[in-house]
Amino acid sequence: MPEPLSEFDLIRRYFTRPVHKAALGVGDDCALIEGRPGHQLAVSTDMLVSGRHFFPDVPPRSLGHKALAVNLSDLAAMGAEPRAFTLALALPSAEAPWLAELAAGMLELADLHGCELIGGDTTRGPLTLSITVFGDVPPRQALRRDAARPGDDIWISGTLGDARLALGDFRGEWLLPEPDFTAVRPRMDTPTPRVALGMALRGVAHAALDVSDGLVGDLGHILARSAVGAWLDVDALPRSEILARQPEECQRLCTLTGGDDYELCFTAPADARETLAGIATRLALPLTRVGAITPEAGLRLVDREGNPCRFDGAAFDHFASP
Amino acid sequence: MPEPLSEFDLIRRYFTRPVHKAALGVGDDCALIEGRPGHQLAVSTDMLVSGRHFFPDVPPRSLGHKALAVNLSDLAAMGAEPRAFTLALALPSAEAPWLAELAAGMLELADLHGCELIGGDTTRGPLTLSITVFGDVPPRQALRRDAARPGDDIWISGTLGDARLALGDFRGEWLLPEPDFTAVRPRMDTPTPRVALGMALRGVAHAALDVSDGLVGDLGHILARSAVGAWLDVDALPRSEILARQPEECQRLCTLTGGDDYELCFTAPADARETLAGIATRLALPLTRVGAITPEAGLRLVDREGNPCRFDGAAFDHFASP
Repeated sequence: MPEPLSEFDLIRRYFTRPVHKAALGVGDDCALIEGRPGHQLAVSTDMLVSGRHFFPDVPPRSLGHKALAVNLSDLAAMGAEPRAFTLALALPSAEAPWLAELAAGMLELADLHGCELIGGDTTRGPLTLSITVFGDVPPRQALRRDAARPGDDIWISGTLGDARLALGDFRGEWLLPEPDFTAVRPRMDTPTPRVALGMALRGVAHAALDVSDGLVGDLGHILARSAVGAWLDVDALPRSEILARQPEECQRLCTLTGGDDYELCFTAPADARETLAGIATRLALPLTRVGAITPEAGLRLVDREGNPCRFDGAAFDHFASP
Repeated sequence: MPEPLSEFDLIRRYFTRPVHKAALGVGDDCALIEGRPGHQLAVSTDMLVSGRHFFPDVPPRSLGHKALAVNLSDLAAMGAEPRAFTLALALPSAEAPWLAELAAGMLELADLHGCELIGGDTTRGPLTLSITVFGDVPPRQALRRDAARPGDDIWISGTLGDARLALGDFRGEWLLPEPDFTAVRPRMDTPTPRVALGMALRGVAHAALDVSDGLVGDLGHILARSAVGAWLDVDALPRSEILARQPEECQRLCTLTGGDDYELCFTAPADARETLAGIATRLALPLTRVGAITPEAGLRLVDREGNPCRFDGAAFDHFASP
C-alpha cells in the first residue's frame, strides 16, 4: 500500500543506481563527471517551490539571489569553482517588473562568481525555479561526503542559526525586536554561498557539505557515508550575538536543526588547524572547531562540560514533516 | 505597466546575455561548454508542469519516459550523444507505486541511450519535473540553429502531427475511431527522441532543431537565427496514414502547428541528398524533403501546385496562448 516515505528514502529506493561513466553519482552535494582537460565537472540541481522554500510574496530580487545561492553552495561544498548554470522557471503569469528584479538578483550573484547563464526553459505553472549549476574541480580534490576519518576535527564556517531565527519570527514562533529581525533576515533571504572557502579547502579538508537542512541531519549524511560517528559540542557551535541573546532552547533549535544558513560543515585532520587558521584570516571568515569524528557510529551531542546533551530535533525532511 | 509577454520575449529581455566562457549560450536546443578532451558538452534543461505539459492522471511510466525523451530530443537536435542527466522533482505526495513506475519509464529510456542519472532534488510541491541533460559532441560539429544557408533543402524526419491529432481527441476537438486513437496516442505520450539521427547528421546537415512547439514556429527560429527565409510545401509534409485520412484543415493544423512529435527539422545542401537517403535506410527512418532555404526573409507556405497557401496558425506559445 502507498505510504508516506521520507525524501531520502524515495530517492534511494527508486532513483539511485550505480554510475559507470560518471565519477560520482546521486548522494553527494554534486555529481562529478569527466570535465575539460585537467578538471572534473561538478553538477548539482535544486528546485525551489513557492510556499515551500520561499514565501509567495518574497521580493523577487531576493528570490533570484537565493535560488542561485543554494546551488552555488553545493559547488562550494564540493570545492568546485562555479562556471555556468541553467534555469528552468515556471510562472503563474509573466510580469515584466517582477521578472526584471528576479533576473537582477540572480545575475548579480552569478557575475560575482563568474557563473554564466547558458540555457533555460520558461513555462506557465505554479511558481517554481529549478537551477542546475556546473563547476570545475581538479581530479580527486573534490570534497566528498564519504571522506571523513576518525580523529578528524569537525569545523563550521561563519555562524549557524540566524536563518532559522528569522524564519521563526516570520512564522510567529517568537517575536524579535525589529532591529534584530532586520539584522538576521538577510541570512534567510539572501544567503552567501561559501565558494571561496570551498576552493580553499581543496587538499586540506577531508569531507564537507553545506548546512541546508540543519546541522544534525546534514552531519548525519557525512557520518553515514563515511561509516564513522562523531561528538559535537553544542555550546561551541558558532552563533551571532543576536542568537546568543535568545533562550538556550531557541539557540539549540536554531544551531542544531536550522536550515538555510548555507555555511560549510567539514572535517579535517588535526594537523590542518594552522592552515585553517590562515584560510579563516585570509577570507575574513571565522572557522570554528565544534567536535570530532569517532570510529564508533552515531552522533553524540555534549555540552561545554562534556556532559551528554539531549535534543530531540531532527533534520528537516520535506516529506516526513507535516 | 505590467503586460503579458510571450515566453520568448521574456527570456530574451531579462535572461539572455552574451556568454564569454561558454561556446554557445541561451537560444539553441542546447548550450555548449568545453567538455572532456576532444568534446564539447551539450547541455539542455526542460521543465514539465502537471496540467500544462501532461494530464495529471497520465500513467507515471509514460510521464517518466516523456520527461526524459523531450530532453534527449534537444541533444538529438544538436547532434550530441547522451551521457548523463539530473532530475529535480516536486511531488504533492510521495506514493511508492507511482514513483516506481515513474522511475521505470525514465530509467528504461535512459538505459537505451546510455544516459546516466547522476543527481537530483526532490521536494513537496505541485507535480513538476525538471531535467537537465548532458551530451558529447565533437568540436564544431554541433547542429546549431544559426547555420542554415540559402539553397539548403529543408528536411523532416518521420511523420508530423500525430501527437497533435491524439491531443485533439483528448481535448474533444474531434473524435477518432478507437483503433486510430490507440495508434497515434503513443506519439503524444511516449515520443521517440531521434538521437541516432542527430548523431548521423553531424557533418551532413547545416542547421537543425526538434519540432516541439509546431513546425511553423520552430522553423521560424532557424530562419531568424540564420537570417534567411524559406518556402515550405505544406502538402509534402510527411504524415501518418491515419492523419492523411482526416479533413485537410485538420491535417494542416496538425502538421504545421502540432507540437510534441519531437521529429527533427534540419537543413542540408542539395549535394547531401544521397548521403541522407543512406542514413534514412540505415536508421529505417523516413527523411522527407519539404522545402528550401531562401536568401529573402520570411516563411512562404505553398501547396503541391506551388500556389501560396494561407494558414493562420502560429507556434504554440506557453504565455501568449489562453
